[in-house]
Amino acid sequence: MDIETLKELVVDSPAKIVLLVMDGLGGLAQQPGGKTELETARTPNLDALAAQSSLGLINPVATGITPGSGPGHLGLFGYDPMKYLIGRGVLEALGIGFDLKDSDVAARGNFCSVDEQGLVTDRRAGRISTDTCVKLCQELRQITLPGVEVFVEPVKEHRFVLVLRGAGLSDHLTETDPQRLGVAPLPVEATKPEAQRTADLVNNFISQARRILAPHHPANMLLLRGFAQHPHLPTLQQLYGLHPAAIAVYPMYKGLATLAGMDILPIVKAEGGSGQTIAEEIQTLAANYDRYTFFFLHVKGTDSAGEDGDFARKVSVIEEVDRHIPEVLALKPDVLIVTGDHSTPAVLKSHSWHPVPFLLASRNTRADGIAEFGEHACARGSLGTFPAREGLLLALACAGRLTKFGA
Amino acid sequence: MDIETLKELVVDSPAKIVLLVMDGLGGLAQQPGGKTELETARTPNLDALAAQSSLGLINPVATGITPGSGPGHLGLFGYDPMKYLIGRGVLEALGIGFDLKDSDVAARGNFCSVDEQGLVTDRRAGRISTDTCVKLCQELRQITLPGVEVFVEPVKEHRFVLVLRGAGLSDHLTETDPQRLGVAPLPVEATKPEAQRTADLVNNFISQARRILAPHHPANMLLLRGFAQHPHLPTLQQLYGLHPAAIAVYPMYKGLATLAGMDILPIVKAEGGSGQTIAEEIQTLAANYDRYTFFFLHVKGTDSAGEDGDFARKVSVIEEVDRHIPEVLALKPDVLIVTGDHSTPAVLKSHSWHPVPFLLASRNTRADGIAEFGEHACARGSLGTFPAREGLLLALACAGRLTKFGA
Repeated sequence: MDIETLKELVVDSPAKIVLLVMDGLGGLAQQPGGKTELETARTPNLDALAAQSSLGLINPVATGITPGSGPGHLGLFGYDPMKYLIGRGVLEALGIGFDLKDSDVAARGNFCSVDEQGLVTDRRAGRISTDTCVKLCQELRQITLPGVEVFVEPVKEHRFVLVLRGAGLSDHLTETDPQRLGVAPLPVEATKPEAQRTADLVNNFISQARRILAPHHPANMLLLRGFAQHPHLPTLQQLYGLHPAAIAVYPMYKGLATLAGMDILPIVKAEGGSGQTIAEEIQTLAANYDRYTFFFLHVKGTDSAGEDGDFARKVSVIEEVDRHIPEVLALKPDVLIVTGDHSTPAVLKSHSWHPVPFLLASRNTRADGIAEFGEHACARGSLGTFPAREGLLLALACAGRLTKFGA
Repeated sequence: MDIETLKELVVDSPAKIVLLVMDGLGGLAQQPGGKTELETARTPNLDALAAQSSLGLINPVATGITPGSGPGHLGLFGYDPMKYLIGRGVLEALGIGFDLKDSDVAARGNFCSVDEQGLVTDRRAGRISTDTCVKLCQELRQITLPGVEVFVEPVKEHRFVLVLRGAGLSDHLTETDPQRLGVAPLPVEATKPEAQRTADLVNNFISQARRILAPHHPANMLLLRGFAQHPHLPTLQQLYGLHPAAIAVYPMYKGLATLAGMDILPIVKAEGGSGQTIAEEIQTLAANYDRYTFFFLHVKGTDSAGEDGDFARKVSVIEEVDRHIPEVLALKPDVLIVTGDHSTPAVLKSHSWHPVPFLLASRNTRADGIAEFGEHACARGSLGTFPAREGLLLALACAGRLTKFGA
């Protein structure tokens, strides 16, 4: 159902929804006929919850398509990830926790090496250290441009973020990275007339940067790509009247939650705690439980372990989450979803296209009576395999937030 | 996901995909509670493979819709069969192995009977013999038209194909078949201005044919319908970088494969062989295995048996395919799909709308652990019931040909 039709059905409700996301939850067996990470994990609490829940598998973007973190989360937040695209520059800025404003134009930058003729010899400047990257970004901050603020923020190794702030900017710009060696970086061109001034400003930035970087071989030039502006999603408040909050440790996921209109909750640190643990995230949920109607709780460790190819560690993170499930249930959420934003099978060491286990617990849903939370169990669930963004609609329905369509 | 977005995700891979299609594979039980053809067949090799595969059911076109051979195969090749339509004239030409060129206009022809006033008395000319059809087509080849080549090719009984070849032709034409008796054949009219010359040429052909056929009652006139040109599909090479080949015995399927950009492999004949057997098709796969990254292998016998209402023969063809599965597996394809283009239940003696069993074997897919390949087993599979064209996307994903969508 399109968002405009849906909006007309929304009614208010005090019911609370908790969306617990284990990043990259879906997995693969290590050998044919074996068990996935989730199936290997000892999860007595999730298994017991599964028995009283509706189970299914979600397709984050489309069959066979491997989602990045942006599309993966937008789907969980109820947006069509093929309609609402988040540009690379914006995602990179969100990833370092940069506080992006509405009209900002952000780009992903690479330091690179050029020869005496200005031709690219290394698109990653020999992967300079992050320390060097920080120093070079500081140098570039002396650049001024007429009528706009300039931000140059280090990311990691040769990567940085460039943000221009000011009125009337546009992201309809070509990239400067020629994507091959032996040629000069390309000038930025406007792909729509209204972007001409922004193109001129970026080219001005590049020519000043060239002079500043000249003595800093191998990082004696830079490449810019993925120019992007804030995608301006309608918020969960505007769409569904939710009062939404996010609990996440990594900047990227806080940034994605912000795009959807969520408040970012400061993590409640345990005594001597890092403010980075699952236990502290759960404490943060409990501490703020009265203040919101929707909570997105993000667990990163499952994805990191999958990306590292560490099957056992991914199993262990899932088991850690399972141990905290009773604390979540003690809050008596009206709707609890446990799922992932995509699969990250340890055997593939990367995100993948495989559908993701999805558990919907609510007194208002049908209990499938399948006492196991895993890929095969969810494949037998009553929800079937369905687009991730429909998960939020099920949550809204169970929370009593959607009234009858048609009389 | 639309094809343009998808194209941007494609990366190269040496992985090999084999798409083994048993035409009309899906079936029905002979009595309530009975087994289908596939379930009746002894298929130890497919059953063992199923245990390590993802299973599902494919919907070739849409729920409840019975596909023709064109839409059935286009779906398997990854095209939306409701978007990419193959005109009747083109399909008829492909069916007789006619080498259709880009700008040709093809039509399906019927010989018919008319009375002295020229009114249709039999739309099929009493189903004249194929021999008579061949002779009449030879007579019609004396017709010449200004600026175009004319081909008149017999098909079967009263059916033939007319092809006009030349620059600037258009298929935006009305049909001449009035679809009822007691009225005269209709003149061809252009439905777009650019088709006026083609309409004039076809009407010229018809008036010459009327004179030639006059003494040949009951086949003393002809009707033309389904004017169509080459559909110009983007090829599998253009879309996905595949290097695709087809192994098929019947002209129709070779023609459909050609539309998708596949090379048609000459069948490797066994000593004294007909070049028509499944064994020879499998030998052809093995002989060409190093030369391509995608193979479409078409088995016709299942559909023919179904159309004949011969349940036992359909079972037997499936068992024959099963005996060759070890030879296919010995090639170690990275991705093997076993499925059909539609159902042809012997009890219906025709194509049908029933979803078709689908088996996806790859080290990169989840094994459902269901040790049986059949309609009911596939209905329990993790892939669920899904559009046929998504099958190719799963194959591409498993073959490592699709990179991440969004950062």
